[in-house]
Amino acid sequence: MTVTIPAATKSAVGDTQEATQETTLEALRKSRDAVLPVMREAVGRLDDTSRAITSYHLGWTDIDGAPTTGQGGKAIRPALATLSAQAAGASAEVGLPGAVAVELVHNFSLVHDDLMDGDTERRHRPTVWAVWGAPSAILTGDAMLALAQEVLLERGTAEAIGAARLLAETTRRLIHGQVLDVEFEQRDDVTLPECVTMAAGKTGALLSASAAIGAVLAGAPAAVVDALSAFGEELGLAFQLVDDVLGIWGDPAVTGKSVFSDLRSHKKSLPVTFATTHGGAAGRELAAWLAGEEASDEPELARIAGLVETAGGREWATAEAERRMASALRALAEVSMPEGPRSDLGALARFIVTREA
Amino acid sequence: MTVTIPAATKSAVGDTQEATQETTLEALRKSRDAVLPVMREAVGRLDDTSRAITSYHLGWTDIDGAPTTGQGGKAIRPALATLSAQAAGASAEVGLPGAVAVELVHNFSLVHDDLMDGDTERRHRPTVWAVWGAPSAILTGDAMLALAQEVLLERGTAEAIGAARLLAETTRRLIHGQVLDVEFEQRDDVTLPECVTMAAGKTGALLSASAAIGAVLAGAPAAVVDALSAFGEELGLAFQLVDDVLGIWGDPAVTGKSVFSDLRSHKKSLPVTFATTHGGAAGRELAAWLAGEEASDEPELARIAGLVETAGGREWATAEAERRMASALRALAEVSMPEGPRSDLGALARFIVTREA
Repeated sequence: MTVTIPAATKSAVGDTQEATQETTLEALRKSRDAVLPVMREAVGRLDDTSRAITSYHLGWTDIDGAPTTGQGGKAIRPALATLSAQAAGASAEVGLPGAVAVELVHNFSLVHDDLMDGDTERRHRPTVWAVWGAPSAILTGDAMLALAQEVLLERGTAEAIGAARLLAETTRRLIHGQVLDVEFEQRDDVTLPECVTMAAGKTGALLSASAAIGAVLAGAPAAVVDALSAFGEELGLAFQLVDDVLGIWGDPAVTGKSVFSDLRSHKKSLPVTFATTHGGAAGRELAAWLAGEEASDEPELARIAGLVETAGGREWATAEAERRMASALRALAEVSMPEGPRSDLGALARFIVTREA
Repeated sequence: MTVTIPAATKSAVGDTQEATQETTLEALRKSRDAVLPVMREAVGRLDDTSRAITSYHLGWTDIDGAPTTGQGGKAIRPALATLSAQAAGASAEVGLPGAVAVELVHNFSLVHDDLMDGDTERRHRPTVWAVWGAPSAILTGDAMLALAQEVLLERGTAEAIGAARLLAETTRRLIHGQVLDVEFEQRDDVTLPECVTMAAGKTGALLSASAAIGAVLAGAPAAVVDALSAFGEELGLAFQLVDDVLGIWGDPAVTGKSVFSDLRSHKKSLPVTFATTHGGAAGRELAAWLAGEEASDEPELARIAGLVETAGGREWATAEAERRMASALRALAEVSMPEGPRSDLGALARFIVTREA
């Protein structure tokens, strides 16, 4: 699936999409290289067991603790954090404590989420709880959350304290999103605004903080911080909408998930919730199937995916992702910042949202 | 069980034990009354679900959300925090954000611990996970941990930042203690120093932070903060030793636990670990029984408790609790502070350690 970026905003952030993709991959590699030693130093402060499990989860080691050649995740949040410092006119280095902190919070939530969802695989490897059990997954997540704050607090500057406060508020919103996600599984009457609030918490909050935390560390004016926050928040929703579309119609070979995976787990995703609440007869049929909670075979799931599409869920989600993306880029365009970081942030945003196209 | 306070230290903190007990109960009530509105305000910031579950866990409401007449726990940590501010010459109010923060961290760890241990009851009520399930227990604990930091960070003063840093380091030590606790269940070769490190993390770290955080918030000199930290740390170990003795030989009617409860769960507590590592033939017999992990009936548990006693575990733990308590009171005596708070801290320490006598 490809999200089309409105031409006006596209020209505002420059470059062709292909050249940008290459540049962005290079920028992500550079950012990951800069963040890695600071991240390793922070993780090194954990007790032996929490450090070993965290190193495995981050893709640095295998189950037995031997170093891997893998690179772990794409580290999109740290890249946003270092670009955010540059957007405020500071060096990427200024954003590093923020980059480490947001990556730790992100991974805390992944480790706890995998346990809560009973997911046994992440990035083609067994999840932490699947290897070491539930108590270790709970404690390792807890340790990462506490460490994220410690990394910022030990800097001790007024800017680092501001970043720590942003992180604490963000964590509260993130947890709220997860709480709603758990609740929605038990409910048949989830509205579209409720579903958007959930996605804003689960995905928007931390991307917003990632895009702003470097600027906070650089002591940027409130207008710049607010613009970057809004950019990250809208980007997060665009990303979630695309992710939800891929969760139903994505190519398993590309997404690494089973075909129709979100339907298989009866997930009340954004396109599904649009369909059940705005989709007429097809939407009502979909809602009845969701409430039934029966396991379905692949032809049945294909029929259900068709219902989401007929009910307008796919079209709405795709269009809404484009609207959110345009809104993100507008937020970026409306405030004064150096053109290099502005262009890089726009390119990174497009990369995030058009991934697995 | 009664821990005898050495006469020299007893006179240093004044009063007779009976009068002190009464005064301490009154002081705990006063402290709880002062902390409660600040605690409610903080918890009020959580999302609806996390707030409802936290209110239940804290004993403010029942499962349906109706207010209870109960008072929740004894709130020992908040009392230490407000006394800590007074020890630094400030008012109790100065310690309130610290009191709320340590109580939130304490309760975060209880909610996660109950889930990890599979405990279905706490303070004669069903535990959070037993009522709302594992995901809600994980998320509510996470929310309390994040909120603890937020309460301190929003003050924004240099002192509050110092307190936030103390709390982050403390949380790391607390989690380390829990990690060791989980590991020890799988091991047959736990040494006494390892067991002490575990208890220092699980119990000492947060009592130490509680006793120091008010002074940190009051901007006290390092010598005062360090003395209060050492006092709390030693007090924590004394408390854990007494708690472990009660976990084997305590009166079920008083402790609220089943008879021999820690032996029933094969817990490698401090007296048990002393016995297996320093207890000769009886200790080796005890170690073999622990490794067997079979369920035992009450006569068998009574025999095992006899082994711990013969191996010297009970005598050592009782004597070590007295040594730690004396060490705690010495730390308090060695630094300059107003006599009122010094005496109150000593009395509170004795109350904590001689509870359920």
